[in-house]
Amino acid sequence: MIETKSGKKAVLVIHGPNLAKLGQREPDLYGSTNLDDINRQLEEMALLSGWSFEAVQSNHEGKLIDVLETADQNFNAVIINPGGLTHTSVSLRDAIKACPLPVIEVHITNIHSRENFRQQSIIAPVCRGSVSGFGYHSYLMALWFFISTIE
Amino acid sequence: MIETKSGKKAVLVIHGPNLAKLGQREPDLYGSTNLDDINRQLEEMALLSGWSFEAVQSNHEGKLIDVLETADQNFNAVIINPGGLTHTSVSLRDAIKACPLPVIEVHITNIHSRENFRQQSIIAPVCRGSVSGFGYHSYLMALWFFISTIE
Amino acid sequence: MIETKSGKKAVLVIHGPNLAKLGQREPDLYGSTNLDDINRQLEEMALLSGWSFEAVQSNHEGKLIDVLETADQNFNAVIINPGGLTHTSVSLRDAIKACPLPVIEVHITNIHSRENFRQQSIIAPVCRGSVSGFGYHSYLMALWFFISTIE
Amino acid sequence: MIETKSGKKAVLVIHGPNLAKLGQREPDLYGSTNLDDINRQLEEMALLSGWSFEAVQSNHEGKLIDVLETADQNFNAVIINPGGLTHTSVSLRDAIKACPLPVIEVHITNIHSRENFRQQSIIAPVCRGSVSGFGYHSYLMALWFFISTIE
Amino acid sequence: MIETKSGKKAVLVIHGPNLAKLGQREPDLYGSTNLDDINRQLEEMALLSGWSFEAVQSNHEGKLIDVLETADQNFNAVIINPGGLTHTSVSLRDAIKACPLPVIEVHITNIHSRENFRQQSIIAPVCRGSVSGFGYHSYLMALWFFISTIE
Amino acid sequence: MIETKSGKKAVLVIHGPNLAKLGQREPDLYGSTNLDDINRQLEEMALLSGWSFEAVQSNHEGKLIDVLETADQNFNAVIINPGGLTHTSVSLRDAIKACPLPVIEVHITNIHSRENFRQQSIIAPVCRGSVSGFGYHSYLMALWFFISTIE
Amino acid sequence: MIETKSGKKAVLVIHGPNLAKLGQREPDLYGSTNLDDINRQLEEMALLSGWSFEAVQSNHEGKLIDVLETADQNFNAVIINPGGLTHTSVSLRDAIKACPLPVIEVHITNIHSRENFRQQSIIAPVCRGSVSGFGYHSYLMALWFFISTIE
Amino acid sequence: MIETKSGKKAVLVIHGPNLAKLGQREPDLYGSTNLDDINRQLEEMALLSGWSFEAVQSNHEGKLIDVLETADQNFNAVIINPGGLTHTSVSLRDAIKACPLPVIEVHITNIHSRENFRQQSIIAPVCRGSVSGFGYHSYLMALWFFISTIE
Amino acid sequence: MIETKSGKKAVLVIHGPNLAKLGQREPDLYGSTNLDDINRQLEEMALLSGWSFEAVQSNHEGKLIDVLETADQNFNAVIINPGGLTHTSVSLRDAIKACPLPVIEVHITNIHSRENFRQQSIIAPVCRGSVSGFGYHSYLMALWFFISTIE
Amino acid sequence: MIETKSGKKAVLVIHGPNLAKLGQREPDLYGSTNLDDINRQLEEMALLSGWSFEAVQSNHEGKLIDVLETADQNFNAVIINPGGLTHTSVSLRDAIKACPLPVIEVHITNIHSRENFRQQSIIAPVCRGSVSGFGYHSYLMALWFFISTIE
Amino acid sequence: MIETKSGKKAVLVIHGPNLAKLGQREPDLYGSTNLDDINRQLEEMALLSGWSFEAVQSNHEGKLIDVLETADQNFNAVIINPGGLTHTSVSLRDAIKACPLPVIEVHITNIHSRENFRQQSIIAPVCRGSVSGFGYHSYLMALWFFISTIE
Amino acid sequence: MIETKSGKKAVLVIHGPNLAKLGQREPDLYGSTNLDDINRQLEEMALLSGWSFEAVQSNHEGKLIDVLETADQNFNAVIINPGGLTHTSVSLRDAIKACPLPVIEVHITNIHSRENFRQQSIIAPVCRGSVSGFGYHSYLMALWFFISTIE
Repeated sequence: MIETKSGKKAVLVIHGPNLAKLGQREPDLYGSTNLDDINRQLEEMALLSGWSFEAVQSNHEGKLIDVLETADQNFNAVIINPGGLTHTSVSLRDAIKACPLPVIEVHITNIHSRENFRQQSIIAPVCRGSVSGFGYHSYLMALWFFISTIE
Repeated sequence: MIETKSGKKAVLVIHGPNLAKLGQREPDLYGSTNLDDINRQLEEMALLSGWSFEAVQSNHEGKLIDVLETADQNFNAVIINPGGLTHTSVSLRDAIKACPLPVIEVHITNIHSRENFRQQSIIAPVCRGSVSGFGYHSYLMALWFFISTIE
Repeated sequence: MIETKSGKKAVLVIHGPNLAKLGQREPDLYGSTNLDDINRQLEEMALLSGWSFEAVQSNHEGKLIDVLETADQNFNAVIINPGGLTHTSVSLRDAIKACPLPVIEVHITNIHSRENFRQQSIIAPVCRGSVSGFGYHSYLMALWFFISTIE
Repeated sequence: MIETKSGKKAVLVIHGPNLAKLGQREPDLYGSTNLDDINRQLEEMALLSGWSFEAVQSNHEGKLIDVLETADQNFNAVIINPGGLTHTSVSLRDAIKACPLPVIEVHITNIHSRENFRQQSIIAPVCRGSVSGFGYHSYLMALWFFISTIE
Repeated sequence: MIETKSGKKAVLVIHGPNLAKLGQREPDLYGSTNLDDINRQLEEMALLSGWSFEAVQSNHEGKLIDVLETADQNFNAVIINPGGLTHTSVSLRDAIKACPLPVIEVHITNIHSRENFRQQSIIAPVCRGSVSGFGYHSYLMALWFFISTIE
Repeated sequence: MIETKSGKKAVLVIHGPNLAKLGQREPDLYGSTNLDDINRQLEEMALLSGWSFEAVQSNHEGKLIDVLETADQNFNAVIINPGGLTHTSVSLRDAIKACPLPVIEVHITNIHSRENFRQQSIIAPVCRGSVSGFGYHSYLMALWFFISTIE
Repeated sequence: MIETKSGKKAVLVIHGPNLAKLGQREPDLYGSTNLDDINRQLEEMALLSGWSFEAVQSNHEGKLIDVLETADQNFNAVIINPGGLTHTSVSLRDAIKACPLPVIEVHITNIHSRENFRQQSIIAPVCRGSVSGFGYHSYLMALWFFISTIE
Repeated sequence: MIETKSGKKAVLVIHGPNLAKLGQREPDLYGSTNLDDINRQLEEMALLSGWSFEAVQSNHEGKLIDVLETADQNFNAVIINPGGLTHTSVSLRDAIKACPLPVIEVHITNIHSRENFRQQSIIAPVCRGSVSGFGYHSYLMALWFFISTIE
Repeated sequence: MIETKSGKKAVLVIHGPNLAKLGQREPDLYGSTNLDDINRQLEEMALLSGWSFEAVQSNHEGKLIDVLETADQNFNAVIINPGGLTHTSVSLRDAIKACPLPVIEVHITNIHSRENFRQQSIIAPVCRGSVSGFGYHSYLMALWFFISTIE
Repeated sequence: MIETKSGKKAVLVIHGPNLAKLGQREPDLYGSTNLDDINRQLEEMALLSGWSFEAVQSNHEGKLIDVLETADQNFNAVIINPGGLTHTSVSLRDAIKACPLPVIEVHITNIHSRENFRQQSIIAPVCRGSVSGFGYHSYLMALWFFISTIE
Repeated sequence: MIETKSGKKAVLVIHGPNLAKLGQREPDLYGSTNLDDINRQLEEMALLSGWSFEAVQSNHEGKLIDVLETADQNFNAVIINPGGLTHTSVSLRDAIKACPLPVIEVHITNIHSRENFRQQSIIAPVCRGSVSGFGYHSYLMALWFFISTIE
Repeated sequence: MIETKSGKKAVLVIHGPNLAKLGQREPDLYGSTNLDDINRQLEEMALLSGWSFEAVQSNHEGKLIDVLETADQNFNAVIINPGGLTHTSVSLRDAIKACPLPVIEVHITNIHSRENFRQQSIIAPVCRGSVSGFGYHSYLMALWFFISTIE
C-alpha cells in the first residue's frame, strides 16, 4: 500500500464530462440521483471503513489527466467514470497507464446495450477492472472492492 | 418556448476549435471572412427580428461542454460549429443531447467533399439538423430557421 | 449568372422517389405537410424575390437525370431531395456533377439519426452544400440561400 | 382489412427486373417455368379462395415504386420479387415502408447460397416476411399465407 | 423419395434453443402461441395429407446434430428453426449439409429487421430454402411446400 | 420481487465452460482460488444476508440454457460467468433475454485487456450490468449488488 | 454465330446514364468528342468490316435492361458503357448475365485512378472482358475485338 | 513426460461434430474411409510403437470440453479434429489452452481452399501445430509426430 | 513522341511471373496459345504498321522494374501483363509511374470474375488504361491502340 | 524565413498530454530521461547554432491549439510530440494545418511496434515529416533538421 | 506417378526467404537446428525409402517460381516453406497452381499464434495440404506423407 | 558494438526499388537530388565522424534480403529506404528482424500524406525507428542518430 499524507487510506473518484448534469440529463437512462448524492453515498461508505474520500468532476480531458498525474501523492486507489471519453481518449488511457494506483472504470448505464460506438472502451484495457450498468451502484461496487481488498 | 431572463428570444452561437483563425486559415477553403465579421452579421440578423445574440469561441472541448451545460438558462436556441470535434467528440455529443434546447450543427465547408474522416459526423445525430457547405451563410441559414420557426 | 429565357432568375426543385406520398407517409417522421403545400410555400418565397419556380417529382432515377441534363437551359439554381437515391445512385451524382448550376441537397429528416445506411450520402460531395433535418424548412433554407447570394 | 373497390380481397404480385426472362434465363438456376405460367398458377390459387389477382412486371425501379404508391387503393396484400433491386434499392425499400399493406418478399433461388452481394437484402427488413429458394413455389407459399391469415 | 419404415411420408420438425419458452418469451416479438400449439397445428396439417409428423426440441447443439445424423432413416423432409444457432453454428450447418434430405430453415420473427448479428444466417446457404417473419405460419408454409411438392 | 418456494430470497450462480478447472488453469491469469472456494465465499456472503444460494457449472451451452429456462421458478437473481460463450453464443444471449430475472455477467479476468475476440461480449447487452477484472471478487461484487438493491 | 434477320453481323452499343452529355461534361476527364462522333466512328469501323451497327443511350436503368432483354434477336454482340450503374446495378448485371450474346464493358476514363467507389465494377464479372481508360478508343478496341474474332 | 496409469505412453484422439458420418458424408470432399477405419489405422500405428490409443467422437461441444478437462490423467498427447467448432468455439479453445498436454489440430480437407469462414481457425493458435488437407493421413501424420518426438 | 535509336516506333511487351508457362498452365482458363505464339502475333501486327517490337518475360519483380527503368531509351510505348504482381506489387506500380512512356495493363483472363483478391489491381491506377478478359487478344487490342493513336 | 521579434531564429517545442511524467512513466518504454533534461539538451543544441528555444507542455488539447494559433508570431519552426492526441485529434491536425510554420511530429517510442490503434497518426499527414522511435533523440533529430535547412 | 529421369522417385524441397539464417535467427522461435541439418535429415529419410532428394533455398521470389516452372521434369513431389511470401505472393501461388506435382506447404512455427498478418496464407489454398508448428519436423511429416502415399 | 573487420565503425545504406531513378522520377515529389548526390553527402558526413560507408541499390527484394543476411559481418548499423516494399514485403521485414544490427527506416516523402496504401508500413515495427518526409535529409538524420549514439 502506498502511504498517503493523512496516514488514512484514501480514494479518488473522478467524474468525466457531462456528469455534472446527472439527475437532470435523460433521467430514464441515467437515473434521477444527482452527482452530489452519489458523492455523499460514496463518502459515507468510505468513512465507515476508515477511508478518506475526494471527488473531482470536469468536462476537460486535460484536467482529468492533470489530476491523475499527481493522484499517487494523496490516494491509494482511483475510481473513474470517463463519460464520453471512454470511447475516444487515448490520452486519458495513457494517463491511467502512467498512474501507479489501481484504477477502476465505472459506468452508470450498461454501455453494451447502447449505440455501437459506446461498446468499445479504450480505457478498460488499462484498468484493474470495469463495472457498468448498475446506476450509481456501479461506483459503490468499485469502492466496495477497494475497501475489501486493500489492506 | 423557454423564458429567458431578458424576456427576449436569444440565440447562442458556439464556434469550436480553430475557428478563431477564420479569414487567415486556408482562405481558398474557408473564405476570407473572419469570425468577427460573421458574428456581426449574425447579430444584425438577430436584432432585426428582436432576438438577442451571443457568441463563444474556444479551442477547448471542455469549455464548449461547460457552455452547453448552462445554455438553457439564458438562451432559446443554439448554433454550433464543432470544427474538428465533429468527427471525434462523444463528450460534445453527450453535452448536446443533455441540453434541452434545439441545436443546429453548421459547417462552413462541405465536409462531405473533403477527407474521408470528415464525412462522418458524430454530432449530427443528436442535433435538430445540419447545414454545411455554404461558407458563413451556413450560420445565417441556421439562424433564419430559428427566427422563422420559434415563436 | 446564367441568363434564362424569361430574363428572370429561376430555381428548379427536384423531388426524388417516394416524395409524392409526403403527408401520408410516416407522418411522425416526415411531417404532415404534403408536396403541394411545400411547392406552394417555395413558389411564394421565390415570387416575393422576383424568382420563378418550377418543381418536378419522379420515382424514376432516369427521369431525374434527364431533367438535370437540360436544367441549365432554363434555371439558375437547383434544389434536390434525392430521397432513397441519396445513398445509392452514382448516376445521379454524375448528373449533378455534369450540371453547371449550383445544386443544394436537402432532406426533410435528419438522415444522420436514422439507419446506418442512410448516414452516407454519395450525392453530398458534388453539391454546393447540404441541409437536412428541418422538415419542409430544409427546402426553404436552401432557397433562401440562393435568393440571398445569387444576384 | 382494407376495403377494395370490387368488394373482393385482392392481391398484387410485383415482378422486378429481369423476371420477364424466366424460363429462358439460366434455367438450371431459375427453373424452366416462365412468368406467365407462374401468374396463371397464382391466379388459379387466388380465385379458388375468392381473391382477385393482378401481376405487374417491370425492369424499371421507378415503375415499381409508382405501382406501390397507389397499391392500397385496389389491393389488400402485396407479393414482391424485387430481383436485383433486393440488394441495392433504398428507394424501393422506402416505397414498401410507405405502403400500408402487408408486403412479402419472395425469391425463386436461395439467395443465401449465391454470390456474397446477394446475401444482404435491404428490402427484407421492411417486409412482413421473406420466402426464398423454392422456385416458383416461393410465390405460392406467400399467397397461401395471405389467403390463410387475411380474413 | 426415400422409403420410410412406416411406408408413409414423414416430416421431422426440429426446434432449436429457447423455443421451449415460446408463448412466454417476449410475446410481442414471438407471439403468444406456445410450442405444443404449433406442433399440434403442424401435425393436423400433416395428417390431413397422409404424412406422419415428429417434433424435437433441444437447447443442445450437439443433440440437434445427433438427430440430423439419422434423420434420413425415418423421414423424408426436415423443417428446422435453429434459433440462436442460425448465426453461429458451423457444426449445425455441416450436419444439414451431410443430411441427404431436403431441409427448410424457418424463423418466427423477421430476422432481417432485428439486431445486425441476426441478419446473417450461416444455416441458410445449405438449406433448400428459408421462410421467416410469419410467426408460427412460417412452419406451416414450409410444411405446405413439402406436402405440395414431394410425391 | 418474485416469490420463491422457500420464502427466502435466492440467487443462482452459473459457471460456464472450463470454470471447473479454476485454480489449476493458467493461475497467473485466473488466480489460484478454485471453484469450490468461490462458491463457499458466495454462499457465506449470501447466508449472512438471509439469501439462499445455488451454483451450477457446465461445459455444455445447452445445459446452461436449460437451467436459465426454469430459473425464475426458484430464484430472484442470476449471476453468470459465461466463459468462452461470452463471445460466441447467441443462444445463451436469447436465454438470458427470455429469463425474467435480473442477470449480471461477471468475468474473473479483465476481458478488455486480452485477445481481440474477447473484447466483444454478445451477452452483456441483455444483462443488467457487467463486472470484469476483479478475480473471484467479480462474483462477490455482483452478489453485493443484488443483496443491496433487491428488497 | 447467332443468325440475325438482316443476314449481316450486327453489334449493339449501349451508352448508359449521363453519356448524352459527352463532349460538354468535364471535358478534361471525358474528352471533347461527343456521343454522335463516337457513334459515327464506330459505325464507320463496323461498316468497313461488313457489320451493321446500332446505338442506344438512356439514363434509365430499366430501359437498358429492356434493350438487353431482346438484344439477341437482332445482334451478335454487345458493347456497353454502363456509366454510374457500373458500381451499383445488380439488375443490369443480371440482365447481362441473362443475355446469350458476348458483352464487353467499356469505360472512357480509367476508372481505377478515380474515386474509391468507382474502382469496383459489379458489371465486369459477367462480361466477356473490360476495356477502360482509352477515351472513345475504348469502344473502338471492343469493336475491333468482335470484328476480329466473330466469324 | 507425464506418467500415465498403464505405464505406457497413450494418445487420445478426439473427433468433433459430424465426424461420425465420415465415409457417407460428401465422399468427394471427405473421402470414403469411415471413422472406424481411421481409428483402426491409428491404433495399429500406435501399438507398433508401444503406445496405447483411445478415440472419442461427439457432436457436443460440452462433451469435448469434459474430455479435455481430465485428459492429462490418462494420456500424454491429444489429436483433435474439431470439425465445425474450429471456426466458432472459444470455449473449446480455452479447454485446449487449459490442458497441459500437447494438442495437435488436424483436418481431413484443406480448410484453406474452402468457404471463407473455414479459413480462420480459432483453435490453431493454442495448439502445438496444425495438419490439414491430407485426408485421414492428417491424423497419422500427427500421431507420427508424437511417436517420433515424445520419448 | 520520344525518338528511339532506330528511328522506328517501338513497343516493349513485358510478361510477368508464370507467363512462360502459357499454353501448358490451366489451358481452360488461360487458353492453349503459348507465349511464343503471342509474341509472334504481336510482332507481325507491329511490323505491318512499321513498328519494331521486343518482348521480355521474367518471374522476377526486380527484373521487370530494371527493364522499366530504361524503357524510355528504346521504346515509345509499353504493354505489361503483370501476372500475380498485379495485386501485390507497389514497387512495380512505382516503376510504371516513374516511366515517362504510356503503359497499358493487359490480362488474358477476366480478373474480375475470379478470386476476390484478383479483383483489385494496384497497377491499373498508374496505367494509361486496362484491357482484360480477351485471351491473347488483350495484348493485340493494346497494341492496336498504340498503333492507332501514336503518330 | 519569417522574421521573429528577437531577430534570432526560434524553435517552439510542444509536448502533449502525459509527457510531464517522462522519466517516471513506464521507463522501460519511454526511457528514464525526464522532460527537463530533454528541454535542456534541445536548448543547448539550439543555442550552439544561434537559435532561441521555447518549450510548452500541456495535457489540454485546447491549450496546444491556442499555442499553435499564435506560434507564427514568435517562431520559425515547430516540433510537436502530440502524445495520445496523435491518434484521435482532428482539431490538433487542423491547428497544425492552419499554422504557416513547418511542423515536425516526433515520438519517443516506435509507435508502429505498439498497439494497433497507435499505428495510425492523423497528425502526420499535415506535418513536414515524422521522426519516431529514437527516445529523446527524436526531438534532437528534428531540431537538427531545422538548424541544417532553415537559413 | 510422373516418371523422373533417374527412374527413382524424387522430392524437391524449396526453402523460401530468410531460411538460410535458420539456427541463428530468433532461435527461441525457429529453433537452433540450421538449414543444412534439416536437409540432411530429410535426405536420410528419403534415401531410406528409395527416394532421391534435392533442396533449394533462395531469398528471391522469382527464383522460387523459376524452380517450380520446371520441377515436374525431375521430381514427383514438392515441399515448400514459403517464408514471408506465404502471406504476400500471388505470383508464387500461381506458380504452385501451374505446377502439376503435389505440393505441401510447411512452416516451422505455428503461424496461427503469431502476428495477425501471418494468419492468412495465400499459398495454402493451392497446396495439397499444410503442416505448421512442428519445428523442422514439419518438413519430415510432409515427406513422410509423400513416401507413404506415392507409390 | 559489433567489431567490424576494418576496426572502423561502418554504416550500410540500402536503397530499395526505383530509387536509382531519384532526381528524374517525379521531381516535384521526390526532389531533384539524385542517388549519387545522396550517397556522396552521406559518405562525407560519415567520414567526418570516422565512420566508413557503403551503399547498395537494388530493385530486387531478394537482393536486399541477401545483403541484410550478412550485413552484421561488416557493419554496425543499417539505414534502409525500402521504397514500395515498405507496404508489401513480409520477407524484408523478416530479414530486418533476423539482422542483429540496429536498422532505421527512412523515406524521402511524407508517406502519411500520400495514397492510403502507403500509410501502413509493415517494415516500421521491426526497425529501431522511422524518419520520413525530409527529402534526402531523412537519410542524414538517420546517420546523425547512429553517429551520435553508437560509441
